[in-house]
Amino acid sequence: MIKAAIVGATGYTGVELIRILLNHPDVEITSLTRKGESISNISEAFPHMYNQLALPCNTLKNPEQVAEKADVIFMALPHCSGLDLTDQFLKLGKIVIDLSADFRLKDADVYEKWYKTKHTHPELLKEAVYGLPEIYKTDIAKAKLIANPGCYPTGAILALKPLTSGKLVKINSIIIDSKSGASGAGRSLSLKNLFPEVNENITPYNINTHRHLPEMIQELTGHKAKTAQITFTPHLIPVTRGILSTTYVSIQENGTAANVIDMYKDFYKDSPFIRILPEGIAPQTKHVYGSNYCDIGIFQNKEAHQIIIISAIDNLVKGASGQAVQNMNIVCGLEETAGLNLIPVFP
Amino acid sequence: MIKAAIVGATGYTGVELIRILLNHPDVEITSLTRKGESISNISEAFPHMYNQLALPCNTLKNPEQVAEKADVIFMALPHCSGLDLTDQFLKLGKIVIDLSADFRLKDADVYEKWYKTKHTHPELLKEAVYGLPEIYKTDIAKAKLIANPGCYPTGAILALKPLTSGKLVKINSIIIDSKSGASGAGRSLSLKNLFPEVNENITPYNINTHRHLPEMIQELTGHKAKTAQITFTPHLIPVTRGILSTTYVSIQENGTAANVIDMYKDFYKDSPFIRILPEGIAPQTKHVYGSNYCDIGIFQNKEAHQIIIISAIDNLVKGASGQAVQNMNIVCGLEETAGLNLIPVFP
Amino acid sequence: MIKAAIVGATGYTGVELIRILLNHPDVEITSLTRKGESISNISEAFPHMYNQLALPCNTLKNPEQVAEKADVIFMALPHCSGLDLTDQFLKLGKIVIDLSADFRLKDADVYEKWYKTKHTHPELLKEAVYGLPEIYKTDIAKAKLIANPGCYPTGAILALKPLTSGKLVKINSIIIDSKSGASGAGRSLSLKNLFPEVNENITPYNINTHRHLPEMIQELTGHKAKTAQITFTPHLIPVTRGILSTTYVSIQENGTAANVIDMYKDFYKDSPFIRILPEGIAPQTKHVYGSNYCDIGIFQNKEAHQIIIISAIDNLVKGASGQAVQNMNIVCGLEETAGLNLIPVFP
Amino acid sequence: MIKAAIVGATGYTGVELIRILLNHPDVEITSLTRKGESISNISEAFPHMYNQLALPCNTLKNPEQVAEKADVIFMALPHCSGLDLTDQFLKLGKIVIDLSADFRLKDADVYEKWYKTKHTHPELLKEAVYGLPEIYKTDIAKAKLIANPGCYPTGAILALKPLTSGKLVKINSIIIDSKSGASGAGRSLSLKNLFPEVNENITPYNINTHRHLPEMIQELTGHKAKTAQITFTPHLIPVTRGILSTTYVSIQENGTAANVIDMYKDFYKDSPFIRILPEGIAPQTKHVYGSNYCDIGIFQNKEAHQIIIISAIDNLVKGASGQAVQNMNIVCGLEETAGLNLIPVFP
Repeated sequence: MIKAAIVGATGYTGVELIRILLNHPDVEITSLTRKGESISNISEAFPHMYNQLALPCNTLKNPEQVAEKADVIFMALPHCSGLDLTDQFLKLGKIVIDLSADFRLKDADVYEKWYKTKHTHPELLKEAVYGLPEIYKTDIAKAKLIANPGCYPTGAILALKPLTSGKLVKINSIIIDSKSGASGAGRSLSLKNLFPEVNENITPYNINTHRHLPEMIQELTGHKAKTAQITFTPHLIPVTRGILSTTYVSIQENGTAANVIDMYKDFYKDSPFIRILPEGIAPQTKHVYGSNYCDIGIFQNKEAHQIIIISAIDNLVKGASGQAVQNMNIVCGLEETAGLNLIPVFP
Repeated sequence: MIKAAIVGATGYTGVELIRILLNHPDVEITSLTRKGESISNISEAFPHMYNQLALPCNTLKNPEQVAEKADVIFMALPHCSGLDLTDQFLKLGKIVIDLSADFRLKDADVYEKWYKTKHTHPELLKEAVYGLPEIYKTDIAKAKLIANPGCYPTGAILALKPLTSGKLVKINSIIIDSKSGASGAGRSLSLKNLFPEVNENITPYNINTHRHLPEMIQELTGHKAKTAQITFTPHLIPVTRGILSTTYVSIQENGTAANVIDMYKDFYKDSPFIRILPEGIAPQTKHVYGSNYCDIGIFQNKEAHQIIIISAIDNLVKGASGQAVQNMNIVCGLEETAGLNLIPVFP
Repeated sequence: MIKAAIVGATGYTGVELIRILLNHPDVEITSLTRKGESISNISEAFPHMYNQLALPCNTLKNPEQVAEKADVIFMALPHCSGLDLTDQFLKLGKIVIDLSADFRLKDADVYEKWYKTKHTHPELLKEAVYGLPEIYKTDIAKAKLIANPGCYPTGAILALKPLTSGKLVKINSIIIDSKSGASGAGRSLSLKNLFPEVNENITPYNINTHRHLPEMIQELTGHKAKTAQITFTPHLIPVTRGILSTTYVSIQENGTAANVIDMYKDFYKDSPFIRILPEGIAPQTKHVYGSNYCDIGIFQNKEAHQIIIISAIDNLVKGASGQAVQNMNIVCGLEETAGLNLIPVFP
Repeated sequence: MIKAAIVGATGYTGVELIRILLNHPDVEITSLTRKGESISNISEAFPHMYNQLALPCNTLKNPEQVAEKADVIFMALPHCSGLDLTDQFLKLGKIVIDLSADFRLKDADVYEKWYKTKHTHPELLKEAVYGLPEIYKTDIAKAKLIANPGCYPTGAILALKPLTSGKLVKINSIIIDSKSGASGAGRSLSLKNLFPEVNENITPYNINTHRHLPEMIQELTGHKAKTAQITFTPHLIPVTRGILSTTYVSIQENGTAANVIDMYKDFYKDSPFIRILPEGIAPQTKHVYGSNYCDIGIFQNKEAHQIIIISAIDNLVKGASGQAVQNMNIVCGLEETAGLNLIPVFP
């Protein structure tokens, strides 16, 4: 049995980790911690967990104690707040899977530009592996520190990587128009996440300035993402879970959508959570709800020399906690899909 | 391995049965049928099932063929349309779990009054067992024909049975004010289930005339439910899944809510899917979303001699397909919770 | 032209007052103030107001200045925070319509029990008139200080008053099961109002302890509401606007629903915003969305000696700002419906 | 007083016309008709209209009778079903404002290609004016037959016309990514518009094949829209009302967003319903809810030589019935804004 600790268990990604790990055949959750005051059971923060596990959720005071009981530590804290802890856990020989943005960008100066804060452990960036298993499985298997990707980048990179890796597209023609549910903003209080502000509304925000953009640029172009070489428009949609990314690329020569579909099927042939949909079928977020799937549909506009690739994920599963467990499976030598046979909940 | 067939696989309860059975360790789905024309894969009707199972979903033409490959047959058809089939399957020695209303009411004349149609197999009513495992587990274990309860009755009966079985309440003081999601109406076309009619709206309907009322009366009072001795107001709420039943009963003597909570805990001590919440905590439908739980919270108004019992279920799981699998587990001698360790999806 | 000031213009009721008054033929808005820092235009807080009115919204520093330019002052502040201001405005001879809870309860000790705070101007309670025009039109016409009713009490009292005023029901048999949209909680930050907590969820809360209960008791029974003589269960529903109150009363003698409907039509014959629906028709919140209507449907359960009266209002209009303007019309001698011909927005 | 008839009064655009015209100071509704069977009052189909107007809604049998009582006739029927009627009304000298797609495309063959049906009155196409007042006000003023634009085209054309009319963009670089509420699909029964299919879901559909695309191409490029020279991806979003169109264009030379904003302000200086938002502010659909506004926000990506123009409309108002009334105002010589001072309903 793998022993797992969750640091930051009372956010949405923390509690989603609990949901997934409780049904994982090879994992035991050994401790839960949080920033706020201790509670004797996680169900005080999340009543749906009533009677599910008998663990308190304490303020993290003694990292050694957490480490002692854990093989793998999931860090589910806001960016910048878990850097020292991660350093400490790594020094204690633990595997750390970090769900924050702290280790995703290779360059500390890019991080500092977009997050407007100093990176206090830039020396760890070299050893961090970007935890997108469909691209970096081999590296993840050997990693000690895994940077779990952002939710928007997960959907966008999976949609575009087969094309960009083949140098088939002009980078600055790439447009990523993403639609996200409100759980992506986490459980912290903010006017724009109040129900009456989100409901019956469609809201574009942080156009070309969203912090997930440099991640996409780094992974799709290999460039240092100091500027917005890719166009990215995130939108807040009145759903709880789900990100649909409609991406557009100009292509020089006109293949057919069927060709591109074949190329994608080949690219992802060893990726159990990628479902390349048949020609003419578009993905929908409800079709991956609660699951670790990324569904991809491919369309083209011959007249306009455009390929349209659309991906759908559940931002809390493939976009966060499910992907973190997928990474854990790989790094721990388990079956990649262990504990992740979550069938989408529809309707 | 138990071999299971689903007749009516392209409704919401049918596809929810598939979701649950695919993760059941002791069950193999052997055939799917539907009323409409055959499709080569269930994912043509439900794209979220893409790549999940390699079974066609055919028009049911040959019941023997279905029966041959099945130990248990789930009937997920509209009321009245599966009566002959059920008869046939029973004669072929199969166990039938019927999710329609056809075998829930003990008296054919009560059925005919509320459903405004002749019951063509009244002789089967005697052998049908009302499939509410928390009340009838022993009978279910020996049954051949199980009448899976309605979604509203499941929530309401579980909320009230400990009080009514103890004769502690005046029957005609019982008020059941239920709030249901739209998936309860199924996947058939109806003006009142269009998104713009349901969204941003709260709609009471069928006040004291809903077809689920006689089921509640039968189970809570033992009476033939020719008239509405209980007050029942269902409301359509803009959620997909979930029924919250707020029930009110007048009591003669004033115990405390704590006493009633203790009584409920005792009544349900062998019921793994009932969670009696601590005093002061009210259930919420999202806390049971996607799971087979029925959460119950108990409150009182001392001044008004009222007990308020509130239950929450997922109408498609505990209110339909999950309960059907629970019944299958019992009748097949499996662990009652097998395949049903579905942790609620929150948020 | 009536000159109107709005104190607390950046809450939901404040901005709804602006929406209504901008289309009012006899009113000019002369000033907007708020508690937070000054903004040069209300559209900075509410972009939907872009280009609608050219008024800044300043921190209120000089009440005399506000009073000077106003005949009527709408107080749209949280309870307890506008008491001194109200006193000051009254002393300056202005009419005050207060949308908070501060002047609704006749007894300071009842207020203090439920709101857990001292009432600092109990001397004003005597002169305050409860601003429910359907009941107190004559008093409102002569008032200086109008206590605009709470949103839940508006719907519940309008549903029940014709029965309780005729002493036709047993008070402690009254059950009020209300379902409210999330805008009722205002624009302040709170975990339980985040979109992912409200969406796809049905949440009962403050059962028999909600602060709007004493208002209902006072108005329906005439009693000092120290205890909960009426049973009241509010529920949070995933809609932005709307309150549906399903109320139940035991009756001794059995009239017919038709009789009760006639009685209600008579009771409300001079009330232009009450729509008593034809027998068999239930109200829905979307049918009053954005309007000042209160729709009422009446049902009965003969067997159980119960009358079920259901009312629907838009909590921000008839439950708050629309009713405040209705009160203003009456106290200023205008047509009761002036500026309030808001046709429900459907779908 | 202008006398107006509505043909097709029981669809969503029909009843929205009633909502708007009832508050119009210069209009009297003289008749309502529908395709289904006659009802004695519109409130039988739309209970929110209870007590609002005392008109039956009859099956249209005698067009002369309707014409006799009307100066203007609004045709709110599905495409293809009102062609003969329109011809008849025009011959009777009436002004027809058609809300269907029948007269929007200049070429019958383009119509036939996209709508897959013969156009039975191609001779009327010449005299039809495309009813987008911000572009064709002068022509509308003299028209007899006004083709009210589609909902998607209204938002997209208003977003892009200032750029395309100045030949500042490459046509085949235009990408229109639109997000629409479910009321756009009308009140007809369809599986994909059921609440459980739309709720908690984001659904792209008809990618580059949507029937509104040729309208956009015709108006933005002046070309005969036989093929998809523009890329258009519509998405169904779980809101009732609202279309947000996020449009992308490649530009050769890099101006600043501020320059483009100035150019748009100038282009729309005589358009009272266009609100060009200040730099950095993005439109949201809830900010125009229930109103006739089209809000436009302009952004740029300098690196990628992209301009992003985002427009928000209420699909039933500016995208349908509000725009129809705006056209009526212009053709009847009334103030363009008469009856359309509808302030957005927020929240």
